[in-house]
Amino acid sequence: MANNNKKMVESITSMDEDFAKWYTDIVLKAELACYSDVRGCMIIRPYGTALWENIRNDLDSRFKAFGHENIMLPMFIPESLLQREKDHVEGFAPEVAWVTHGGEEKLAERLCVRPTSETLFCDHYAEIIHSYRDLPKLYNQWCSVVRWEKTTRPFLRTTEFFWQEGHTMHETADEAMEETERMLNVYADFCEQSLAIPVLKGRKTEKEKFAGALATYTIEAMMHDGKALQSGTSHYFGDGFARAFGIQFAGRDNTLQYPFQTSWGMSTRIIGAIIMTHGDDNGLVMPPAVAPVQLVIVPIATHKPGVLEAASALCDNLKSVVRVCVDDSDNSPGWKFAEHEMKGVPLRLEIGPRDIQNNQCVIVRRDNREKTIVSLNEIKEKLPLLLKDVHDGLYQKALARRNSMTYTAKTMSELKELADNKPGFIKAMWCGDEACETELKEKAGITSRCIPFEQHEVSQNCVCCNKPAKELVVWGKAY
Amino acid sequence: MANNNKKMVESITSMDEDFAKWYTDIVLKAELACYSDVRGCMIIRPYGTALWENIRNDLDSRFKAFGHENIMLPMFIPESLLQREKDHVEGFAPEVAWVTHGGEEKLAERLCVRPTSETLFCDHYAEIIHSYRDLPKLYNQWCSVVRWEKTTRPFLRTTEFFWQEGHTMHETADEAMEETERMLNVYADFCEQSLAIPVLKGRKTEKEKFAGALATYTIEAMMHDGKALQSGTSHYFGDGFARAFGIQFAGRDNTLQYPFQTSWGMSTRIIGAIIMTHGDDNGLVMPPAVAPVQLVIVPIATHKPGVLEAASALCDNLKSVVRVCVDDSDNSPGWKFAEHEMKGVPLRLEIGPRDIQNNQCVIVRRDNREKTIVSLNEIKEKLPLLLKDVHDGLYQKALARRNSMTYTAKTMSELKELADNKPGFIKAMWCGDEACETELKEKAGITSRCIPFEQHEVSQNCVCCNKPAKELVVWGKAY
Repeated sequence: MANNNKKMVESITSMDEDFAKWYTDIVLKAELACYSDVRGCMIIRPYGTALWENIRNDLDSRFKAFGHENIMLPMFIPESLLQREKDHVEGFAPEVAWVTHGGEEKLAERLCVRPTSETLFCDHYAEIIHSYRDLPKLYNQWCSVVRWEKTTRPFLRTTEFFWQEGHTMHETADEAMEETERMLNVYADFCEQSLAIPVLKGRKTEKEKFAGALATYTIEAMMHDGKALQSGTSHYFGDGFARAFGIQFAGRDNTLQYPFQTSWGMSTRIIGAIIMTHGDDNGLVMPPAVAPVQLVIVPIATHKPGVLEAASALCDNLKSVVRVCVDDSDNSPGWKFAEHEMKGVPLRLEIGPRDIQNNQCVIVRRDNREKTIVSLNEIKEKLPLLLKDVHDGLYQKALARRNSMTYTAKTMSELKELADNKPGFIKAMWCGDEACETELKEKAGITSRCIPFEQHEVSQNCVCCNKPAKELVVWGKAY
Repeated sequence: MANNNKKMVESITSMDEDFAKWYTDIVLKAELACYSDVRGCMIIRPYGTALWENIRNDLDSRFKAFGHENIMLPMFIPESLLQREKDHVEGFAPEVAWVTHGGEEKLAERLCVRPTSETLFCDHYAEIIHSYRDLPKLYNQWCSVVRWEKTTRPFLRTTEFFWQEGHTMHETADEAMEETERMLNVYADFCEQSLAIPVLKGRKTEKEKFAGALATYTIEAMMHDGKALQSGTSHYFGDGFARAFGIQFAGRDNTLQYPFQTSWGMSTRIIGAIIMTHGDDNGLVMPPAVAPVQLVIVPIATHKPGVLEAASALCDNLKSVVRVCVDDSDNSPGWKFAEHEMKGVPLRLEIGPRDIQNNQCVIVRRDNREKTIVSLNEIKEKLPLLLKDVHDGLYQKALARRNSMTYTAKTMSELKELADNKPGFIKAMWCGDEACETELKEKAGITSRCIPFEQHEVSQNCVCCNKPAKELVVWGKAY
């Protein structure tokens, strides 16, 4: 038993030894995803798909609560349509996949596989928006998109990835700005309430914003290794695309006006964030709200009469409160423990002959391995509370880590010292000049993660050029 | 009011005048879908997307009840992988979209956008199937696929379409055959129980079966115009792909064996079947189980005090039993009636000042326009029953139509006479020779829809060559 357990655990590289390998080990061994024969594309396996479906359902109901509707647009964009907005095409054209032939026939116009769908949405909006009564339009799409990436890693950067993309049109700039902020908050709430991941909310610098946007808002999460992972973005476009696509509506005053636009997206990248925020050397740790399995029942001494029956009856009884399954395979309990730890199941329930006699069971938390003996009379009420404890435990641990790995730098030498030796976020003041941003990248290897909404003054001058500072920026290395 | 109503209704071409135009009118005016600027691709609008989501959720839970798991594979297939199985590539290569460039670089090997994913699944199964303990593998994928169609029509035939594709692997041929039949029955049950569409179950002829399959089972529905619509298919592959892809497992007797395979799919085509089975000259008629809105509340005399409040309170009260909304727009009731009839909402609830006084409301069924006065005390209990009545009404009407439009032919002249003059299904005996099948297509313009599971003898000889008949075939024109 102990041997088996050890063997499973040994098969993951430890986080400290090689973080990148630890990550890949978890992806593969928890069976979230595997590589495919298609360059840069992964296969998301049933366990990963179930996780994505829970993420999707949770986010989708948050979107719908604000009146958003889903829509399904084509996966192809004709080259001329992609070129309609200048900044946008410059940003995306170098990294799209081009379809040039349909069957045996060469196409008159190339089609790209969508890297994002602003152009398709705008083309459609031009058809259906005529009056202020048609606004706002609050559309969202769940789909996959393709970007021709040079180096790829499962979930973090793949040629094809899954996401949702919201695209909305509004009567006024104010309403569009409100929407941009609202959806960033939806993402932040989702990360904190459902994924137990604390995030930093802020605005991207000009250099880092989305191609074609006037402003990009972001939520940034800190991974175990101190690197940042951009976990969701929300863009404000003004009326730039509307002008490029000729989208006009008759306003309340009967004049023709251009609507104001937003888009916002969250992708399967967030699964990478879950792994690198909560995982440990035993494997994945699933946040309870989206865990495909919230509780696994491991019967002990299954050869003894009544044990499997009791486990199965318990499972049926608990189905209404948690996502539960029984592991009745013929593996040893130790092997099962290691297996479900690897897969990050938040709670394990052990039940054996003596437990049955005593009308109790043992619950073990995945996050801290804490064991509790619970009466079978109370188990149904206790489980939701225990899941909440796991969620809170994960969140607090992640928050404490982020706090302990967030530093401030007043001078360039302080900043370089931190960047070289202390993985994490660095708060430092910035004059607003892109030249300084570029210099920090070149000299310290860090990029601006965001200009946080919550501003405070670390010093009075730009950490780079020493001119008067305009704002606080959070810097770091990023995935 | 009456005028408005008339105007809306007049704007659809009548079914008898031009069935194809009637169909397109409904698709566009009920806002299910619209054309896009991308050749052969449609935009599925929010109302159509909500319908597809309900179809998806319903089917998905039926799949999961049999232990199927969802998975997400890449959208691209390298050319060499597509070519691995000979019959399969011959069937699909002429109609795929080819990606030849990624960004600015020309690809060493072309990728096609998946037209179906047997090859990708087999490639993956070769990696993960090693022992009989790994079987069965019961995977399903929800995605879109691309086939380069020459002529397209919304939902019925589009270059890109949405579907699910199940791909399973089994230890024995018998188990795979069982799965093939099981999934056909799942489709048939879904059509009948959730879509109120009666379907004919049967096997495709050699000529009509799926590229690479040993047997293809099908469900065929009859549209309003007597044409058939193939609504779902389930394929048995034997071990052909397994051999081509080198998928082998250690059997119970420790010998290396090839597993047996199935695949099965249902697509957004089924939305075409809903339209053409239940629709009428007033528009769409949604089967209650998948209707995005099952009940629309139309307040009457909204300027009178208390009416809007009563409608809104009623809506809140009914949310737990039906998908309901209030139409509180400033359009006239007549306009609203026509609008929601167009969209096929199964039940309409009218409530005005006098109804409020009498503690009642008026319910109108979409399918037969039957009006019932229902006490507000009973409405919550009555609604599910009324929805069931609509479902049953739709199903019975469709079944009666199919029965009345199903004919038998014993001779070629009888068959030609029917094919020329009587839209519908023709039952006729067949010798099993493909030459006869081809001749019927050439001479009478009909194809074999299926060899129905329920066989009976219409005559003793083949309707075409007069040689002894092997089986009963249902023939017809098809979408």
